[in-house]
Amino acid sequence: MPRASRPGEFALIEQYFRPLAPGAAALGLGDDAALLRPRSGEDLVLTTDTVAAGVHFFADDPAESIARKALRVNLSDLAAKGAEPVGYLMALALPADWTEPWMRRFCGALADDQRTYGIGLLGGDTIRAVGGLTITITAVGSVPRGAMVKRAGARPGDAIFVSGTIGDSTLGLRVRRADIAAKGAGARFVLDRYLHPQPRTTLASTLRRYASAAMDVSDGLVGDLAHICDVSGVGAEIRGDRVPLSDAGCKLVAAGKVGLGELLNGGEDFEILATVPPANAARFAGAAKRAGVVVTEIGVVTAGSGPPKVRDSRGQTIAVGASHAHF
Amino acid sequence: MPRASRPGEFALIEQYFRPLAPGAAALGLGDDAALLRPRSGEDLVLTTDTVAAGVHFFADDPAESIARKALRVNLSDLAAKGAEPVGYLMALALPADWTEPWMRRFCGALADDQRTYGIGLLGGDTIRAVGGLTITITAVGSVPRGAMVKRAGARPGDAIFVSGTIGDSTLGLRVRRADIAAKGAGARFVLDRYLHPQPRTTLASTLRRYASAAMDVSDGLVGDLAHICDVSGVGAEIRGDRVPLSDAGCKLVAAGKVGLGELLNGGEDFEILATVPPANAARFAGAAKRAGVVVTEIGVVTAGSGPPKVRDSRGQTIAVGASHAHF
Repeated sequence: MPRASRPGEFALIEQYFRPLAPGAAALGLGDDAALLRPRSGEDLVLTTDTVAAGVHFFADDPAESIARKALRVNLSDLAAKGAEPVGYLMALALPADWTEPWMRRFCGALADDQRTYGIGLLGGDTIRAVGGLTITITAVGSVPRGAMVKRAGARPGDAIFVSGTIGDSTLGLRVRRADIAAKGAGARFVLDRYLHPQPRTTLASTLRRYASAAMDVSDGLVGDLAHICDVSGVGAEIRGDRVPLSDAGCKLVAAGKVGLGELLNGGEDFEILATVPPANAARFAGAAKRAGVVVTEIGVVTAGSGPPKVRDSRGQTIAVGASHAHF
Repeated sequence: MPRASRPGEFALIEQYFRPLAPGAAALGLGDDAALLRPRSGEDLVLTTDTVAAGVHFFADDPAESIARKALRVNLSDLAAKGAEPVGYLMALALPADWTEPWMRRFCGALADDQRTYGIGLLGGDTIRAVGGLTITITAVGSVPRGAMVKRAGARPGDAIFVSGTIGDSTLGLRVRRADIAAKGAGARFVLDRYLHPQPRTTLASTLRRYASAAMDVSDGLVGDLAHICDVSGVGAEIRGDRVPLSDAGCKLVAAGKVGLGELLNGGEDFEILATVPPANAARFAGAAKRAGVVVTEIGVVTAGSGPPKVRDSRGQTIAVGASHAHF
């Protein structure tokens, strides 16, 4: 139980969470449930992801970073489905030693992100955590009827695209753990990529228009591509040398501090992996750029099956090792 | 990380969770998100509740009981809103020492409850727990447009009803902790009430038809009634002697083993507390009975404000002490 000097659950709702829930659907958090009135011709997309201290973040990471990660990993799933974010429910398991300054910073960052992504808190639950801080967010998105982009839909011949750069979050985690010695702007960049996923929400409509399949890269590029292949009943070949790396990533690979395979399997990139019919590939890349997101063509969907093949510039297979599953 | 002898997250999904998700909305759990196609004229109701080992259940409670509690506390919220359950997303933080027999029993109980309540698993997430087992379920329900029963809606003169019996779960917890000595059928009954909430889903349409406000009793009858009063801008008076107790509850109160106030504040009853305009009170009780749920009139909504007053049969105020908040 919290100490008497800190608010109980209802005071916590009143003081910290109610200001995050101005929308009518949340009923001011003064009810048992949120009420969503779907618009005509709209499908709803629902996704849930948990982040926990000691698994997805460090307990002493900034409160703002924890809040952003918890929310954005869910918004990334919505973006990959071509869905526009609507709102979210948040279940918080809060350790007994939480403090009000921490909560103000945590909720302040949620409020910032709500403005950025045009969403509101719809509802939630707060319990006392026996272990560390654990945050489960269920995000709700909206797509025009029938327009959700699924994982199953890749066809042989489709171009394979990925947004942004791959492997930075893995590098950030290794810098954070001090098992890669890195300093300066590069280290700060990858740490920021680890702490603050950038959900590609502005890509949603472009994905709906052009992609045959998509998902966000959360468990590693190669392993996640394997999931698209599995459910689509296809194979894939990608060119390892075409996978976009950041300057920091390039330098660390070139310096031999990390292998390319580790970056291709690292996970928590929260970039978009999409397959696009070849006739639309150029239009997809152009529309993505206009939406403010660079996408890179890294390979092709094949008629085969089994794990994606990763080749170098001479066509030789690169062994990328096993996927690093976050469980 | 799980030991190699047990499945990782994707194998866990394949083996245990996919069979729980036969509906089209879940996309076979082979995607990042669930897809809900609302019917015309339908509102969706969303609620999320977390249960955790050491807070809401004991880690050595039967796997089946834990599964049922996790799901049913959410279905109870939907029922109180007059919503018909549609499905749920489940985020599981699983301790490293989980076993396959435990998981089979856990998922078997979910499958049973899915049949009972006519719902399916829509999606989820599984992470490694640093603390104990923690289960966050987000349940989705459906109501005809505009028909959700809110907490705000109670009017002076409305009759106050509660379903089932109150205080049994509190007694079950005390028996479980061995701080009440009780044996035999009565002890088994209250233990069952603690372990296995009975969401009053069959009351949903009756609530939509007749109730002016409703919620489920999860934090204690008197405290929860105070929430209805707060958001409705009304007061309330209830008769302590009319609050329905089970035979086991009556005997323990009569034997002086527990005070009535503790039962009225106990929480986790997962009964429905509803206010009903007086002209509909008899019809409400009749329809509830036909739906298989006994409801009892325990008091009246007043024009006042402040905490509900609890009186005895002679009209004297009963002090019921402070609410036992589950946080």
